[in-house]
Amino acid sequence: MAGKSIQDLSTPAFTVDLVKVKKNAHVMLEQFRELGVQLRPHMKTHKTLECADIMTAGTRRCIVVSTLAEAFFYADHGFDDILYAYPLPFDKVARCADLSERLTLFHVLVDNSAALEELKKWPLKKGKNWHLWLKLDCANGRAGVPHSEPAALQLAEAISESPGVELTGVYAHCGNTYSCCGEEEIKAVAQETTTFTLKFMEKLQANGIHCSKSSIGSTPSCSHPIPDMALLSEVHPGNYVFYDVQQSMIGSCKLEDVAVRVITRVIGHYPHRNQLLVDCGWTGLSLDSGGRLPTGYAIIEGHPDLKLLSMTQEHGRIEPILPGKLDYEKFPLGSLLSLIPYHACATAAMHPVYFIHSNGVVVDTWTPTRGW
Amino acid sequence: MAGKSIQDLSTPAFTVDLVKVKKNAHVMLEQFRELGVQLRPHMKTHKTLECADIMTAGTRRCIVVSTLAEAFFYADHGFDDILYAYPLPFDKVARCADLSERLTLFHVLVDNSAALEELKKWPLKKGKNWHLWLKLDCANGRAGVPHSEPAALQLAEAISESPGVELTGVYAHCGNTYSCCGEEEIKAVAQETTTFTLKFMEKLQANGIHCSKSSIGSTPSCSHPIPDMALLSEVHPGNYVFYDVQQSMIGSCKLEDVAVRVITRVIGHYPHRNQLLVDCGWTGLSLDSGGRLPTGYAIIEGHPDLKLLSMTQEHGRIEPILPGKLDYEKFPLGSLLSLIPYHACATAAMHPVYFIHSNGVVVDTWTPTRGW
Repeated sequence: MAGKSIQDLSTPAFTVDLVKVKKNAHVMLEQFRELGVQLRPHMKTHKTLECADIMTAGTRRCIVVSTLAEAFFYADHGFDDILYAYPLPFDKVARCADLSERLTLFHVLVDNSAALEELKKWPLKKGKNWHLWLKLDCANGRAGVPHSEPAALQLAEAISESPGVELTGVYAHCGNTYSCCGEEEIKAVAQETTTFTLKFMEKLQANGIHCSKSSIGSTPSCSHPIPDMALLSEVHPGNYVFYDVQQSMIGSCKLEDVAVRVITRVIGHYPHRNQLLVDCGWTGLSLDSGGRLPTGYAIIEGHPDLKLLSMTQEHGRIEPILPGKLDYEKFPLGSLLSLIPYHACATAAMHPVYFIHSNGVVVDTWTPTRGW
Repeated sequence: MAGKSIQDLSTPAFTVDLVKVKKNAHVMLEQFRELGVQLRPHMKTHKTLECADIMTAGTRRCIVVSTLAEAFFYADHGFDDILYAYPLPFDKVARCADLSERLTLFHVLVDNSAALEELKKWPLKKGKNWHLWLKLDCANGRAGVPHSEPAALQLAEAISESPGVELTGVYAHCGNTYSCCGEEEIKAVAQETTTFTLKFMEKLQANGIHCSKSSIGSTPSCSHPIPDMALLSEVHPGNYVFYDVQQSMIGSCKLEDVAVRVITRVIGHYPHRNQLLVDCGWTGLSLDSGGRLPTGYAIIEGHPDLKLLSMTQEHGRIEPILPGKLDYEKFPLGSLLSLIPYHACATAAMHPVYFIHSNGVVVDTWTPTRGW
């Protein structure tokens, strides 16, 4: 496979530009090194060893995962200091205990007292404590105790008073940056999340509750860090290593920073309805975006006049955006088109293997972990 | 795993009711046996050996696949008479030749003369001919030569005159049944597709072009076969073995025929926004349906008053449909909910393993093939 041109790959193929990945990773590492904040990159976008090595600059330490399958995958390959940043599912406590006992640092996350009780039923062996992060909802509206509710402080107190359990950190995800448009809006949400988190840390201190770490994150907020983020211990973005059309629209990056593509081939010409078919359906791209981009489900690189109108399992329908006949001579049967995904996480999740290239020449393949 | 209750599975889990699968498969086999039409079941929904055995009643013969990865997977496990019902992608001709030479019967499909020329560049060894199906578009509007255009007959002629290539069949997919509502509308589309296909077969005969087989299919049309389908050689439905919410809305089946579920756990209570979170996001269900069901992205079994409002990668937000407070005591943290998928093909595609149960007790696990 190595040495092959990406033009010769069997399609559909998920390709990753190694030069851009390394650049995206380097920029993020550098800017938080300068701010004096620990970068704890999220693995959920790619779920591969190779990309984790790039994001951690080879340390294999200090990562976030979205599933326990990822946690085991990384632990089994020598990674440590892993934060499973997901509201503790009660069916997975035994497996979390296993990782807590095996690793130097394995962190779990809770946003309710019932989860704390579940953990207390499983005291760790080897004299270890559970490392617990409290999930705070700073106006994102998904998981977490609302930062302003008394329940947040009460949960922190309950954790700190529980034997065998240690309140390691406070964790907030600013997913609400995904509805922003432009750097200014992103920074406003980042400021709000940072302020709420730091105020909560002060409240803990004022109440004599020991907690050493605070972390916020999302790719938009970490792509444009605000000065106050220097007061946090950590940040935890993930998508930035690939970026995607969505991130470019939010304002996290430029379109040229996007490192991933789905390479697809023209498999049919249908002049009677002014369309062509490509061999990428939703199994190769995902249905994320709902087709609401001006260019449909993706951006077709180099062809801003074309729209990926609809997809079925293995077929994609493409047509011109403006009235006028499609010039089929430009798109011979068997020729390639390159799709820039709307959402890199969702697209990567559809592919059992990624083709890694440098300037269009395949240099490696990466195999992600899957499941839970 | 076998002997475990599905209630004890780690979540999210894709479960398959073996009793329903066997019944769905049996009904389809029986009704086409009675009509004297060969059932050539499509594998794209499940992509497993075990389900293929059930759908072929153990013969391991006469199947359709949507990817070459499926074709090799089945060929490597003793299946034969495999139709790769996809407009021939030019990058896959060599692999198609390999399968054509290995198997007794491997069929490929074309809808344009350029594809025929590609095949002619690869004459098969061992004195074999390419088995070619002509894809006809009978008002579906995806792949295929429009049935009424002179190009259809011209392509058939070109195939029949080509050395090393044999026109084996004519293939039409009536995907337009997916926009039907109720048996009557489904039957009207099935009638139209059947009539167009049979007329084209007559035209071939009238022009002295030998072609022995005709096939139409889609789960809606094959779930309510019309009498004229007895005049076809084959049919090729696939989804029926699982069925799903979409099929029940089209009128292909009743909701109780749906054999698959995603089992998920409650992981969070958020009374301040009247929602709960479950551990199934789009990695466990897919984004198919776009959330446009009255109950959102799925039907929550036994809870017609609840809506799966939105999903992120690993989280699903649930809220009541009608105004009024969610009764959290009914949904304790850690308790299970069962999601009936909108689209079984899209949901199955997200899972690396399926949990097969009989009356709620796990009896097996099935592992699908993936990729292209």
